[in-house]
Amino acid sequence: MIKLYNAGPSGNGHKVTLMLSLLGLDHEAIPVSLPDKEQKTPEYLAMNPLGKVPVIDDDGEIIRDSQAIVVYLAHKYGDGAWLPTDAAGLGHVMEWLSFAANEMLNSCAVARALILFNREGDLAAAQEASRQCLDILDGHLAGREWLVGESPSAADVACYVYAGLVHMGDVDPLAYANVVAWFDRIEALPGYVGMDGLPTPR
Amino acid sequence: MIKLYNAGPSGNGHKVTLMLSLLGLDHEAIPVSLPDKEQKTPEYLAMNPLGKVPVIDDDGEIIRDSQAIVVYLAHKYGDGAWLPTDAAGLGHVMEWLSFAANEMLNSCAVARALILFNREGDLAAAQEASRQCLDILDGHLAGREWLVGESPSAADVACYVYAGLVHMGDVDPLAYANVVAWFDRIEALPGYVGMDGLPTPR
Repeated sequence: MIKLYNAGPSGNGHKVTLMLSLLGLDHEAIPVSLPDKEQKTPEYLAMNPLGKVPVIDDDGEIIRDSQAIVVYLAHKYGDGAWLPTDAAGLGHVMEWLSFAANEMLNSCAVARALILFNREGDLAAAQEASRQCLDILDGHLAGREWLVGESPSAADVACYVYAGLVHMGDVDPLAYANVVAWFDRIEALPGYVGMDGLPTPR
Repeated sequence: MIKLYNAGPSGNGHKVTLMLSLLGLDHEAIPVSLPDKEQKTPEYLAMNPLGKVPVIDDDGEIIRDSQAIVVYLAHKYGDGAWLPTDAAGLGHVMEWLSFAANEMLNSCAVARALILFNREGDLAAAQEASRQCLDILDGHLAGREWLVGESPSAADVACYVYAGLVHMGDVDPLAYANVVAWFDRIEALPGYVGMDGLPTPR
């Protein structure tokens, strides 16, 4: 069975939990205590030198990084449904995986973490950057049901989680009607599973 | 012919120029003046709502984001050589594409930009984060020639450029012997092309 090393509050970890559930895959959850720095032990760093959750161990194949794990699972277990196989489709999915890995993580996830963990940092800047991300998603989703193509893909899973948690960073997603309609579509998918704070209040 | 919208000093843009050249593909370079905010015009934002270079237009297929473009080109024109087709290989490439999109961009690229463009920002923090990236690359490359598998891939192209430019952020790469040996291997590839500041002085 796939082992998932994860920490409860991690949105990145939830991307993986969500992808696994949408694919109908069981997994063994292995909690990693971030306050106890379990993600910095030599054993953990041997799996992921970045010292972060999530990591999966799929029968000895160890993959780190939420985007990479979502791609791996979609490719291996998705029967072609969750990851395009043509160059343009894969390229467009990759556009949104980069957006999730950088722009969304360094805005939506940061704003949420500053409030949730009472950390010091520039909350206003993170909130403004979060709104820019929502604006980009909203513009792209005008006239579209999914980020890439005609069906949900790894791109939707990777971008959904921190967008769907943006209210925890005190950013109101309700001004972004296309994004909210996309939330509704994702949350209606068979196998959808939420985490604390998801679905968003609306 | 593939059109590449790019700005001269952009390391992200150079990832694409390098991938094109390694694949033996001609392209038409379309300069985008960042000081003149040409990346923020309505026409440009219609291609890339993030308002950044690079973007390619391959016979009407428009792709943004350096990692996404490298994946697209590798898949479409690489004859299977530059992007693994199995789930584990693709997942491992994706680990390094996320690393390039987030950790390396927000350290190595930032340190370089702070000095090159005389911007305000926390140079010491960017340099320290750059050294952490080099350390991770160096550890991974111990006993390996390439980041994923037995031959160069999109992962190497995406991670090489800002690592190879790290000296412009006043970070010395010479302490990372495995990284320097990897630089040498990449720079010896047929079709390798440098940019200002590449190859690194060593």
